[in-house]
Amino acid sequence: MDNISLEKQHAAIAATLLIKNGMTVGLGTGSTVTFFLNALAKRMRRENLSITGVTTSFKTEIIAQNLGIKIVDIDDVATIDLTIDGADEVDYDMNGIKGGGAAFLMEKIVANNSKRIVWIVDSQKVHLKLGLMPLPLEVVPFGSGKLMTELTKQHLYPTWRKKDGKLLVTDMGHYIVDLSLKTIDQPYELARYLDGKIGIVEHGLFLDIADEIIIGTTTGVEYLFRSDLQK
Amino acid sequence: MDNISLEKQHAAIAATLLIKNGMTVGLGTGSTVTFFLNALAKRMRRENLSITGVTTSFKTEIIAQNLGIKIVDIDDVATIDLTIDGADEVDYDMNGIKGGGAAFLMEKIVANNSKRIVWIVDSQKVHLKLGLMPLPLEVVPFGSGKLMTELTKQHLYPTWRKKDGKLLVTDMGHYIVDLSLKTIDQPYELARYLDGKIGIVEHGLFLDIADEIIIGTTTGVEYLFRSDLQK
Repeated sequence: MDNISLEKQHAAIAATLLIKNGMTVGLGTGSTVTFFLNALAKRMRRENLSITGVTTSFKTEIIAQNLGIKIVDIDDVATIDLTIDGADEVDYDMNGIKGGGAAFLMEKIVANNSKRIVWIVDSQKVHLKLGLMPLPLEVVPFGSGKLMTELTKQHLYPTWRKKDGKLLVTDMGHYIVDLSLKTIDQPYELARYLDGKIGIVEHGLFLDIADEIIIGTTTGVEYLFRSDLQK
Repeated sequence: MDNISLEKQHAAIAATLLIKNGMTVGLGTGSTVTFFLNALAKRMRRENLSITGVTTSFKTEIIAQNLGIKIVDIDDVATIDLTIDGADEVDYDMNGIKGGGAAFLMEKIVANNSKRIVWIVDSQKVHLKLGLMPLPLEVVPFGSGKLMTELTKQHLYPTWRKKDGKLLVTDMGHYIVDLSLKTIDQPYELARYLDGKIGIVEHGLFLDIADEIIIGTTTGVEYLFRSDLQK
């Protein structure tokens, strides 16, 4: 196993320790979450735990069900006790960019309905400032060409997300546009601009959302806690 | 013809006078716009005008094409010269609520890409404050039950829009939720809250969008112009 995978696995295993019998758990999307799902399934079998899962993508739903984790619709649970998710990039303010896998709209909805949110990442995802990774937008197809023109004028460097040469269509029927920003100096201002922009369903900036970040290292894990952040 | 229809027709006919040969015209949705389309088609035939239309709904597209108005995709025009649209409710600040017909997301995108926007309404649509008409939200289906619970807690009185006993699905695959607010005292604050809310694709508050409002009366029309508004 390469070092990055090892780090992901360390973070994933640490996250499984947070899961208690009877919990409703939000299940994120991505390679680190897949490590988590495998480790969780093992723990459930070994300790005979009963866990209900709420997924953030069809992909995670299939993986979880194959591992024997019961999946229910978000609207059929009273509350989500804990959500475990990955992130494409995080900073030391515990903000993040998500959406490499194009599932961030469902991830944001699940996070918004969770009592506690834990992100699991490898050490290379942690940066002083966000923006090195592309910032994804989920946009409605109608008028999206015009939106691209406007984003370009605003120097936000948009490109279409494609798959097999065609525009990628999300689980919800939207397109994905990636902004190549290099550095996001003012994430809150940018989020407000994108929130108000017509045609943008959601963006991949996750601000003030994670309660805890578990960073895998080659030898173990490190933690960031929201309660430790300076106000 | 009843008085309301007469008023709509007066506003619609006045709007056709703004159309010039060769224009690309955004075509709204609703009963007043249907009066406009009929009047426009007559004028086009009589004066041999060539007009290109960009529609805001499949419904308008069908009506326009049946009337012989050429329809193109919004992304295939350089710019929209003028958009003629209706509104469910307007106030004297020239703000409005749109979305009775569930086409407001496309209407907002077309408005956002138009050089000039004219609304045509009958006199009963004009109120001192917005909110008597339900304020529609277009929401993503995933997690929409949870969103309803949250909107209820915020005293925004949401109800699902239904059709034939089932949840209405928009042209874009979203649900519609109507907020029964009676009076909207702070439309800008409300818009900002709804813009930032996860799972809400768009809302029916159209603030600072109309350049001109043509109000039909039983005897003629009255005009509101943005340039006349006190700053």
